[in-house]
Amino acid sequence: MSFLELMLKRESCRAYDGSRNVSREDLLKIVEAGRLSPSGCNAQPWKFLVVDEEDALAKMRDALVTEDAGTGAPWGDQVNAFIAIVETPAKVMPGVLTHYKDSQRFAQGDIGMAAMNMCYQAEELGLSTCPIGLNEQKKMEKNFGIPEGREVRLVLAVGYAAEETEPREKIRKPLEEVCCFNEWK
Amino acid sequence: MSFLELMLKRESCRAYDGSRNVSREDLLKIVEAGRLSPSGCNAQPWKFLVVDEEDALAKMRDALVTEDAGTGAPWGDQVNAFIAIVETPAKVMPGVLTHYKDSQRFAQGDIGMAAMNMCYQAEELGLSTCPIGLNEQKKMEKNFGIPEGREVRLVLAVGYAAEETEPREKIRKPLEEVCCFNEWK
Repeated sequence: MSFLELMLKRESCRAYDGSRNVSREDLLKIVEAGRLSPSGCNAQPWKFLVVDEEDALAKMRDALVTEDAGTGAPWGDQVNAFIAIVETPAKVMPGVLTHYKDSQRFAQGDIGMAAMNMCYQAEELGLSTCPIGLNEQKKMEKNFGIPEGREVRLVLAVGYAAEETEPREKIRKPLEEVCCFNEWK
Repeated sequence: MSFLELMLKRESCRAYDGSRNVSREDLLKIVEAGRLSPSGCNAQPWKFLVVDEEDALAKMRDALVTEDAGTGAPWGDQVNAFIAIVETPAKVMPGVLTHYKDSQRFAQGDIGMAAMNMCYQAEELGLSTCPIGLNEQKKMEKNFGIPEGREVRLVLAVGYAAEETEPREKIRKPLEEVCCFNEWK
């Protein structure tokens, strides 16, 4: 399969087969795709918290419900594996600190790259994923012992899709709106 | 090629063959991989500024040199194509605004995902890339007419590698340092 085919095939899945568990072996392959990802100054500002045991799954489902805005994953009870990507302090080149005064300047983008890789690795293993952005940080800290302020940037739901379906058409802005050549337009 | 093979093959290239230009057709395929990328709430908070003409290349090389911290791309004069990824205002779901009070909460991660996809699409076309994080925003705005404060998050250098080499070993933190199971460790 070409990369373009893989990219067109991958899509967020919001209906999982709750009767099938994801093996620890597969979860480790997915984490490995995150671990090997590129990052600004090779800082690797991430920690992958794999959740695949019953008590911890209940804690994750709880932390995915915010106190003021509900949840981005109302289908979370079908999911038997999550991987939370937590941002960690980045060690960057001195010039980056001089210029941006922010060790975390690249961290969120780095985590996006890692998450993308993890989704593709999962896809290749026959698994489906959904990156969940909304969570209740305070519950994450309390439920899992994550240090205060260490932000959970994304949680990947990982599992077997409830049914095999044709990929949906990707609804995106037209090229003219998102692309320009040699000057801003 | 499996996704894992592609991931292991892709690496940042810092030595380009300046005598070979990248076709507009290939640049558009790379932009397309960015355009089709997933994003939080499907907000697509990005604009791709493709730079492939002589005057604009000079402007880009200039803007990649910061006033206080030098450049992340001292080899930039070998590069005949760049794609700047500029963050644009994101339209997100009401709950995200309620909870995070920040329309841009996911934007940097989204741009990371788009950049990763663009690197893979380039790789598949036989092109090499390097994501450059450091740039002088004020020069970007002045040189290209980018609206004030619209941040250039990453610039991808795109080109033919000066020579075909075996992929370098990826130096990464060990698994135990970046992964934990069911509780923070």
